[in-house]
Amino acid sequence: MFTAIVSASTLRDALDSVSVLVDECKIRLNEDELVIRAVDPANVGMVDLTLEAAAFEAYEADGGVIGVNLGRLEDIASMADSGDLIHMELDEETRKLEVRIDGLSYTLALIDPDSIREEPDIPDLDLPAEIVPEGAQIDRGITAADMVSDYIQLRVDEAEESFVIEAEGDTDDVDFVLEREDLVDITPGAADSLFSLDYLKDMNKAIPNDAEVRVELGDDFPVKMHYDFAEGLGHVTFMLAPRIQGD
Amino acid sequence: MFTAIVSASTLRDALDSVSVLVDECKIRLNEDELVIRAVDPANVGMVDLTLEAAAFEAYEADGGVIGVNLGRLEDIASMADSGDLIHMELDEETRKLEVRIDGLSYTLALIDPDSIREEPDIPDLDLPAEIVPEGAQIDRGITAADMVSDYIQLRVDEAEESFVIEAEGDTDDVDFVLEREDLVDITPGAADSLFSLDYLKDMNKAIPNDAEVRVELGDDFPVKMHYDFAEGLGHVTFMLAPRIQGD
Amino acid sequence: MFTAIVSASTLRDALDSVSVLVDECKIRLNEDELVIRAVDPANVGMVDLTLEAAAFEAYEADGGVIGVNLGRLEDIASMADSGDLIHMELDEETRKLEVRIDGLSYTLALIDPDSIREEPDIPDLDLPAEIVPEGAQIDRGITAADMVSDYIQLRVDEAEESFVIEAEGDTDDVDFVLEREDLVDITPGAADSLFSLDYLKDMNKAIPNDAEVRVELGDDFPVKMHYDFAEGLGHVTFMLAPRIQGD
Repeated sequence: MFTAIVSASTLRDALDSVSVLVDECKIRLNEDELVIRAVDPANVGMVDLTLEAAAFEAYEADGGVIGVNLGRLEDIASMADSGDLIHMELDEETRKLEVRIDGLSYTLALIDPDSIREEPDIPDLDLPAEIVPEGAQIDRGITAADMVSDYIQLRVDEAEESFVIEAEGDTDDVDFVLEREDLVDITPGAADSLFSLDYLKDMNKAIPNDAEVRVELGDDFPVKMHYDFAEGLGHVTFMLAPRIQGD
Repeated sequence: MFTAIVSASTLRDALDSVSVLVDECKIRLNEDELVIRAVDPANVGMVDLTLEAAAFEAYEADGGVIGVNLGRLEDIASMADSGDLIHMELDEETRKLEVRIDGLSYTLALIDPDSIREEPDIPDLDLPAEIVPEGAQIDRGITAADMVSDYIQLRVDEAEESFVIEAEGDTDDVDFVLEREDLVDITPGAADSLFSLDYLKDMNKAIPNDAEVRVELGDDFPVKMHYDFAEGLGHVTFMLAPRIQGD
Repeated sequence: MFTAIVSASTLRDALDSVSVLVDECKIRLNEDELVIRAVDPANVGMVDLTLEAAAFEAYEADGGVIGVNLGRLEDIASMADSGDLIHMELDEETRKLEVRIDGLSYTLALIDPDSIREEPDIPDLDLPAEIVPEGAQIDRGITAADMVSDYIQLRVDEAEESFVIEAEGDTDDVDFVLEREDLVDITPGAADSLFSLDYLKDMNKAIPNDAEVRVELGDDFPVKMHYDFAEGLGHVTFMLAPRIQGD
């Protein structure tokens, strides 16, 4: 059983954070929250999304799991204006999701959850450094790095208490330093890891410019990025595996 | 003999409604109105446009016919700002149309009208149902249908007195219901026809979002859509042949 | 030695006027001004740009010459908002240009100036006619001419004291007349030359719509177009060779 009413903008923000990594996903319709966990086909990037029942105008669920084509659900959501409410109702018999926006109704065929890549277990990592920039700052660093390289280095300068985003190209280099006063917060620690820009660019597309993004970082360790949406009732964690440095 | 002065926006609205169906057309320069009738190469969609002399700042004509390349005339009109006046004058000897916008003048070679597909006779049909939605509602139905299918079904639910736009895809369906109170007007009647979305999408491009569109509909019959522009002095009728249902 | 601070919009306007003709250029870092002269690979179009020291927030140079990839420098400049200041500093040892925008720094590898096409000497021509339209009028004439032809004719009607922009297509013609009262200024003289539209379209991209453009013109002679930017402290001259008429 699943029926829900949610604002178009909340649904879109939720879907966007997953669709940057995968085309299809399982959605867990828990009693008190909707949960999506997904990993990209190369096992490099993961997302863990939770949308609390309170983020919905109405929400009723009993723990089922559905499989959806994200692009199609995003197309439907794009038919609504930001303020519009989107009604969703699961037809248990036909295994279709009825999506209604005003007089418009869309019957979406669901995907057998068993045919979808298994949900990842996002590991607990005790990462030594934590930095909190705004989404716009991450965007700026990624855009600059992208001018010169396919990789991006994220590190903490413990002495300066700054967050450093670097990229080395064949001839040109980019270097973006965020001091303590530029950041919402920083907990310095030994942290220096290299990542594929492609994945970070995709994740960056989903991160709102004004979101405070809690970045957990280590030495040649995965990076975790946490941010909230839907007025604090939606939560996203991205995790990205590092590229081992030194060739 | 033909000389006319018309606002750029009126000329553009007129040309757009024809160019969605054909590249070239005949323009009848009647004494009291300009008339264009055209049918697409596959004989599926027709347009009948009338622009009254009163829609022009100045209009003088004596019943001649000219053949024009619509794309080219639209390019010229696009050089004007919306409020600009466009002067047109036919040079009978050279068979060229002189188009002037401010200091700019464009000499457009006309096409021999005899080389252009014959103008269609748009048949009088006594269709049982008439529905009057706004252009924006038609646009919404077409956009939604386009997500799942190449065809669109238009029908009237006589019991509910509602206008139903439907599309059936391989896995997903779309269903858009406009009740009496959503519509400008409705005269229910037996009406249920299937149409090619390609043609409706083209016609829809020309229909202003805020236009009241009078839709005449029957059972496996062509649909007619009528709307006005140029403050009620321009009139467009689109007619689209149905796709016979049932395979 | 070279260090400079300049507003992003001034740097962008300067680079744009050169990058429409060439991909790489030499920049002369004179004591009191920065100078770029370049000619396109086909030797048809030339640009001469001067940006006075006073156009910078800070400027220190001693006459060196650097070679730059314009696209790359434009990419960097695009990272700044219009009001942002861009800091540039030449590292004499590494022959790299350090470009800083806020916390972001970009290390740009320079190009050996000797490997870049030699700077042209823009000839002194005593052209008989001078016309001063606004950039927007040149844009209008070029856009209209582009609808019918690959060439554009610029001439002065000495009797009417007007500037005439013409293009002759296979079937259609365009004719744009600017009278004395439409122009900032005109000094009539024998002037009638044909030019390749491709080059003029490129130059036109760099000319601000509201710039007063001093156009010098002769009979089958090159055209020169002069305009200022950066509040009168930046100066651009474009010169374009004519296409000889009469085939």
